[in-house]
Amino acid sequence: MTVGNPVFPEIHVISGIRLGTAFAGIKKDGRDDLLVIEMAEGTRCSAVFTRNKFCAAPVIVARRHILQSPRWLIVNSGNANAGTGNMGLEDAYKACRGLADLVDAQETEVLPFSTGVIGEALPVTCINDALPKALSALAEDAWKSAAAAIMTTDTHPKGISREIRTGPHRIVITGICKGAGMIHPDMATMLAFIGTDARLNFGVLQSCLHDAVDKSFNCISVDGDTSTNDACVLMATGQSSAPELAPGSTELEQFVGALQDVCDQLAELIVRDGEGASKLMRVIVDLAASEAEARIVAKTIAQSPLVKTALFAGDPNWGRILAAVGRADIDELDISKVSIHLGDVNVIHNGEPNPDYSEVAGQKVMAQDTVTVRVSLGRGQASQRVLGCDLSYEYVRINAEYRT
Amino acid sequence: MTVGNPVFPEIHVISGIRLGTAFAGIKKDGRDDLLVIEMAEGTRCSAVFTRNKFCAAPVIVARRHILQSPRWLIVNSGNANAGTGNMGLEDAYKACRGLADLVDAQETEVLPFSTGVIGEALPVTCINDALPKALSALAEDAWKSAAAAIMTTDTHPKGISREIRTGPHRIVITGICKGAGMIHPDMATMLAFIGTDARLNFGVLQSCLHDAVDKSFNCISVDGDTSTNDACVLMATGQSSAPELAPGSTELEQFVGALQDVCDQLAELIVRDGEGASKLMRVIVDLAASEAEARIVAKTIAQSPLVKTALFAGDPNWGRILAAVGRADIDELDISKVSIHLGDVNVIHNGEPNPDYSEVAGQKVMAQDTVTVRVSLGRGQASQRVLGCDLSYEYVRINAEYRT
Repeated sequence: MTVGNPVFPEIHVISGIRLGTAFAGIKKDGRDDLLVIEMAEGTRCSAVFTRNKFCAAPVIVARRHILQSPRWLIVNSGNANAGTGNMGLEDAYKACRGLADLVDAQETEVLPFSTGVIGEALPVTCINDALPKALSALAEDAWKSAAAAIMTTDTHPKGISREIRTGPHRIVITGICKGAGMIHPDMATMLAFIGTDARLNFGVLQSCLHDAVDKSFNCISVDGDTSTNDACVLMATGQSSAPELAPGSTELEQFVGALQDVCDQLAELIVRDGEGASKLMRVIVDLAASEAEARIVAKTIAQSPLVKTALFAGDPNWGRILAAVGRADIDELDISKVSIHLGDVNVIHNGEPNPDYSEVAGQKVMAQDTVTVRVSLGRGQASQRVLGCDLSYEYVRINAEYRT
Repeated sequence: MTVGNPVFPEIHVISGIRLGTAFAGIKKDGRDDLLVIEMAEGTRCSAVFTRNKFCAAPVIVARRHILQSPRWLIVNSGNANAGTGNMGLEDAYKACRGLADLVDAQETEVLPFSTGVIGEALPVTCINDALPKALSALAEDAWKSAAAAIMTTDTHPKGISREIRTGPHRIVITGICKGAGMIHPDMATMLAFIGTDARLNFGVLQSCLHDAVDKSFNCISVDGDTSTNDACVLMATGQSSAPELAPGSTELEQFVGALQDVCDQLAELIVRDGEGASKLMRVIVDLAASEAEARIVAKTIAQSPLVKTALFAGDPNWGRILAAVGRADIDELDISKVSIHLGDVNVIHNGEPNPDYSEVAGQKVMAQDTVTVRVSLGRGQASQRVLGCDLSYEYVRINAEYRT
């Protein structure tokens, strides 16, 4: 299930980045499950990884290799190579070596990524056998098939592309991602690969990525579970005609805005395709003392199983929202300053039920496929938005049957 | 649904406590929805309430009245009188006054409790109209009908009774509770009323209750939601022939053990009757640096929707347990010291998958209706147990349809 009718958009190719896919026999349904991404020499690459302490073997290896000017990414779906101990680590290195040998590179120039079932050995021989086919398929315009090859329980490939003009120059950003379950702030079971032809120094690149991820992928929740394998990679080839984006410049600001937009759109695509999701929930908490506390309250609402099932039922059961606000872990909340809106409909005003509220008005909001919940805390000026989805029968079915 | 075949046990009456129920017309199915409990003069009464900041009106009132030597409890099901603002507060006082007038007591001698739908006005006139019937039904042995009258989505009345002997004397403890959803550590949507004929001073009574609740009701989770209305009341009539239980005495120790047992059993009954629950999960985290960190890890596992759906499916998907351990909010976990067991079956030993583990052995454990998950952290000697249940289609159905 997915909210809305997603179509893979037209994308801008990124000069200096080529992608190739193949079927390595990991997924049971015969769809491509292997992706190779080649980055031209001089590409700067930054990444953000899961904070899960049981992080997967490929995450450990990618973290080690990221500082060595990587030129290649190898990504498989269908198997997470997580919970696989030392053998898993060896397998991740073997996959890197397999690719490095074929392209005459160093093992350390390859970053590995895996997504899929946890706790099963990575079929690294199958992967290495399929590598030549993926390499022969390398093309600049293969973003859509790349997005398809990294899917697990996703129902459709996810991608987005943006273009900015800086004077006579043109900079493009194109990103793909996967992720549908185990999605939670802190980058849960999602992989995102974003390319740009912008020229940036490594420090700027890194801070751009961190900021954009924090406000996008770290503000979504499907089920509150944080995966062992999450990663978001930003690859900047520098092949645009635009000069290097200098700190403090308008051009960098433009780029940051476009990158944020790309990350926001990808994050929203993930929530919309949340396992079993039939409705999207935008939780906006404002008038908070800090962004951090706004985020805590917003996440508490977005993760509440009771709020999520009410959303699924289209039931304007605002009492559950109020209960979630009340149990959010923030200090000394004065409920007499709290107001709650469902869409434009005021439900609670300064801690009191709005006497003009009607169930019909609430139902009208809840019947839409995107529902905005706004909570104003009356404690300051900070705000935060978190995206979530409903909890449906389908979520249970998908996750109860995933391995069987 | 419920795990196992619960039968309401034989109970010991508590000399000095009488209970009476009636139908006030709040519940739609015609079952009794009003309970009155009378405590004899000299009864000492202590209570623990929800920490939800949007706590319900009756919680606010009960907190104010608890220190005034209460003699009466008035409890309704079907309506939580939460999210009802100042009007709700007035209604809670009206209910207290209604009862006080009939029994010639002070309003402040009555503690009100409500459970049910949030955000709808309490039908206080219906309640007050039904009070005479509840009063005329007052009886020492009405614990089972009392347990039935406080049910909401519960599938059966819940109660337990224990007896201890101190020399020639006999002390009894009898408790009832309700709760099936919105259950979470920190006392979520549950009401528990426990009576004893023991004689204790107020300070001892209070600390006994706090300790027992902390290790029982605060260590269960159905869905991670904390209610606006939770309360657990301990009423000690002092009518046993046993002398006052002195701090440090063996007799008090015996009493504390029995009270803990009563709370543990009631808490387990709630989880077993968790909304949609078909399986019970005992999560034991040991070799932790502190009880607090053991609890954090145990709760993270017990609340994980992915672990819960795997439990529902009977799928030994231990990767999800490992992922939950890895994202638990504790510092510097060395995964090379972590071991995980499903029942007696070792899955992870010192961070590595156990090579002798077989899926068949795991499936055998997961097929049982009570599954024990044990995680050893290798950081110290502390341990903690948390009870949870699975996440089923039925949970979604119950909570999507609750108001419609």
